[in-house]
Amino acid sequence: MAPNESARSTRDKHTPDATRRSERSRRAIYDAALALVAEVGYPRTTIEGIAARAGVGKQTIYRWWPSKADVVLEAFLDLSEQAAQAAGQEAHALPDTGDLAADLKLVLRATVDELHDPAFEAPSRALAAEGVVNEELGRRFVAKLLEPQLRLYVDRLRSAQAAGDVRADVDPRIALELFVSPLAQRWLQYTGPISYEYTDTLVDYALGGIAPR
Amino acid sequence: MAPNESARSTRDKHTPDATRRSERSRRAIYDAALALVAEVGYPRTTIEGIAARAGVGKQTIYRWWPSKADVVLEAFLDLSEQAAQAAGQEAHALPDTGDLAADLKLVLRATVDELHDPAFEAPSRALAAEGVVNEELGRRFVAKLLEPQLRLYVDRLRSAQAAGDVRADVDPRIALELFVSPLAQRWLQYTGPISYEYTDTLVDYALGGIAPR
Repeated sequence: MAPNESARSTRDKHTPDATRRSERSRRAIYDAALALVAEVGYPRTTIEGIAARAGVGKQTIYRWWPSKADVVLEAFLDLSEQAAQAAGQEAHALPDTGDLAADLKLVLRATVDELHDPAFEAPSRALAAEGVVNEELGRRFVAKLLEPQLRLYVDRLRSAQAAGDVRADVDPRIALELFVSPLAQRWLQYTGPISYEYTDTLVDYALGGIAPR
Repeated sequence: MAPNESARSTRDKHTPDATRRSERSRRAIYDAALALVAEVGYPRTTIEGIAARAGVGKQTIYRWWPSKADVVLEAFLDLSEQAAQAAGQEAHALPDTGDLAADLKLVLRATVDELHDPAFEAPSRALAAEGVVNEELGRRFVAKLLEPQLRLYVDRLRSAQAAGDVRADVDPRIALELFVSPLAQRWLQYTGPISYEYTDTLVDYALGGIAPR
């Protein structure tokens, strides 16, 4: 996801200073990309604009990323990884304490915090909005950013099926949408307030169903 | 929702010809608004552009609607009402045959058809995308278009609670999101295919829960 490590280190000849400089440039480019998308929207964000704001040459960006979509999507990927780390979560697995409801509630509460984070809000909305009307970008957004996160829910629900906490005939990829999609829609479309109580309720309804037991 | 009836008929002095002319203009304005939003997006759609495309004067539009947002939102409202009628649905209530799962599946299948309808797709995406980054428009979109539709689900779930088919402690406004929001997210964000089988599954999971019974 970061610029190809081996290509970069070859080009920079492995000197520690060059690596630090590259890392600083990469960070400046990500910050500039996110800021521009938030301020002027995706269509009016350009490689030139990102380079100017980041204080790097255009060629520095083209050396690492083939297109605007690539640099913007990787800036977002980096943003979500930072958010996951800040929330004390391993980015590559959901908690598995054996209590499925508790684990899901914990992760969704962290997502609620992330959605309320101003650093995340404006650029994420701008990219999501563009994805709605730009199918190619929307599908790349899903493949690179959303689907890897949804896979973590699939894995956790599979483990719950093995433990007998989710029915074996349930499709985990659909089941996760019962709690993930309502939160996404409230955030994207302003259809209702977002709170821990709300996401806790979604998990309870999804696991237990709304019909009498 | 249509131009104020009494104001219009007074101005037009109640002659049948004038009423027909007004109705033709209103229809032309709605069609032009939807086409423009689909083609150039909401931000670049203007009252001037709508008037030119509809072949009416700008003042005709301002006489009936105070702003661009109003005419665009009413054009969408009209579009959904037409879709509901085409699907043979009463726009103001969900079916209530006593079989909750069957009723919900029927309505969601009609929504699947609507989402696949090209006349609906482009303008709806453009308006939804704008609502993501334009909170004021997003909230009006919800209040005028989305929430009235969601109230029909609330009513149907309340009736199911009275019949003992949904637990009394369930909040219907949240419960409906278990099947409505996944469909909305798949459509908005291209997170997965949309089919009758998919929406049927959502209803089954939401009613019965994904945990073993």
